[in-house]
Amino acid sequence: MQGTIELLRRPRLCMGAAIAGKKEGEGPLGTGYDQVIEDDLFGEESWEKAECRFFYTACDTCIRKAGLTREQVDVLLGGDLLNQITSASMAARELKIPFLGLYGACSTMAEGLCIAAMLVDAGHVRTALCAASSHFCSAERQYRFPLEYGNQRTPTAQWTVTGSGASLISSDESLPAIAQCTHVTIGRVTDLGVADANNMGAAMAPAAADTLARHFRDTHRTPGDYDLIITGDLGQVGHDILLELMRQRGVPLITERYIDCGLEVFSPGQDVHAGGSGCGCSAIVLNSHILERIRRGEVHRVLFMATGALLSTTTSQQGETIPGIAHAIVLEGCSACSGAS
Amino acid sequence: MQGTIELLRRPRLCMGAAIAGKKEGEGPLGTGYDQVIEDDLFGEESWEKAECRFFYTACDTCIRKAGLTREQVDVLLGGDLLNQITSASMAARELKIPFLGLYGACSTMAEGLCIAAMLVDAGHVRTALCAASSHFCSAERQYRFPLEYGNQRTPTAQWTVTGSGASLISSDESLPAIAQCTHVTIGRVTDLGVADANNMGAAMAPAAADTLARHFRDTHRTPGDYDLIITGDLGQVGHDILLELMRQRGVPLITERYIDCGLEVFSPGQDVHAGGSGCGCSAIVLNSHILERIRRGEVHRVLFMATGALLSTTTSQQGETIPGIAHAIVLEGCSACSGAS
Repeated sequence: MQGTIELLRRPRLCMGAAIAGKKEGEGPLGTGYDQVIEDDLFGEESWEKAECRFFYTACDTCIRKAGLTREQVDVLLGGDLLNQITSASMAARELKIPFLGLYGACSTMAEGLCIAAMLVDAGHVRTALCAASSHFCSAERQYRFPLEYGNQRTPTAQWTVTGSGASLISSDESLPAIAQCTHVTIGRVTDLGVADANNMGAAMAPAAADTLARHFRDTHRTPGDYDLIITGDLGQVGHDILLELMRQRGVPLITERYIDCGLEVFSPGQDVHAGGSGCGCSAIVLNSHILERIRRGEVHRVLFMATGALLSTTTSQQGETIPGIAHAIVLEGCSACSGAS
Repeated sequence: MQGTIELLRRPRLCMGAAIAGKKEGEGPLGTGYDQVIEDDLFGEESWEKAECRFFYTACDTCIRKAGLTREQVDVLLGGDLLNQITSASMAARELKIPFLGLYGACSTMAEGLCIAAMLVDAGHVRTALCAASSHFCSAERQYRFPLEYGNQRTPTAQWTVTGSGASLISSDESLPAIAQCTHVTIGRVTDLGVADANNMGAAMAPAAADTLARHFRDTHRTPGDYDLIITGDLGQVGHDILLELMRQRGVPLITERYIDCGLEVFSPGQDVHAGGSGCGCSAIVLNSHILERIRRGEVHRVLFMATGALLSTTTSQQGETIPGIAHAIVLEGCSACSGAS
């Protein structure tokens, strides 16, 4: 079938938490985060350890906001951009919750939500926590250059978000509820031949178009059926390409109802070139701003689709192009959820 | 609940495929693999691309052996040891099957089987393919030293298996069936402080003991209830530590009914020190030797638990110890499955 999966029991996204870095805190969504950490080392000795601290803090905050203990969370699903997803793994070591490690580059927040929603829908787990993180400094030195080198950034380059977001999905009706998860579309690895590691938006846009087109085909819906369609971190370049690709496919997006987290998280004055990126980008925007808009009833039905560029320094050096992937989940506001707070 | 999950619909493991490297082909299980590839580059230009070819070939072989087309496989779950799991991602690009990328180090084969079994059990997908790969040369140069350096290996070191294994889980009753998946125990990240990157067995054994003890507690079973308990790649050192840890926990394993894929895949004469390792180790042993023993009825109920060392060169250089994780799935021989071939 390879199609969109409908979640018949409508598992509920009960809580979100977003922990952001200093620059993100200075951005247009700055007041909506649970915490803004001014110190980019978060009190740790390295940026990698700091990123782990962001991941841990997002998870811990989300669990506490939902009024739960760690023992009441059945499974943690998550990942990050670092080799061997060490931020997620080391945080999972501290949290002691059964852990499913994911790698979907910047699509990780959506990948985790999709799997978690299916597991909760099936009744295999009662409560699942999903999280993703990124850190500008740890990502930059792993994927590109030592920060000390001070390299010039191209106009298409994006700025990796420092931060982590976490979402709790549960069938526990005593918990508050923000949204119901109704559909999941799992992405396919798509590659139209972009090889420029400074143009992630162009590398990811075709995967986003593939997932969106499959989603509309499978659900017999159109872009107009959504109050908001949200991509993860296509940035300005990828955002514009996606609009064009969807026009070509005959399912044009409604521009006023389409946003990209990479364009929301920073303001044009913050000198981030094409916008924000990183697993943390869509993770903190979803788990603050978007969930708040759903909670307030400003938007009811949203499609959240984080996009990942499966970039590797090794494969790039070996002449490979950059494949992309995008996973989508539909969230519907919980005004009608039973047990909603 | 954080507990073992029982799969009430008993999704069926329908087919396995194992593609092995030359050294693995010379090992005691050599005649059981679907293909032994003599050329460690598999006709490609780099070991990384070769590993991707192993991954792709295992998936393709498994699908064809089951008599399916790629379009009939709803989702591919998998990963490998390389940064950004490029072997799996690039293979998924070629296979064009919706893809969930996983990172669980050498536990990946079990992580994929656990998630796939739950998704098929729930009816969210009909047919799922799980795969994992590793390659001695790509792993050695990423995690340790350039091969040209010819470094001496310590007695506790293990030899990364070159190969890939794939398993197909489906609710399609027209397919052949080898085993039913009955229970899943998701692992917790466990770390008792081992920091020696040449002693993965010791780093992983505590996670294996944690998962096993939780599994027995949750299912009210004992080691005697299993014809075979199989760990992924603890090697000789980790194997012995696990036996001791389980004795200390009061649930001693029955040594004749406990095997480790890292000890099965090579013979003592192959100079691999403490045994085999890598995602590919348990993947090729499960999908050849173990499934064949189940098919023949030599063993009926087995617990397959792949173990991962969440090692990163970056975190190791920053003084971190090596956390481990282990996921377990119970397979029961399909003599009683409906539709079994």
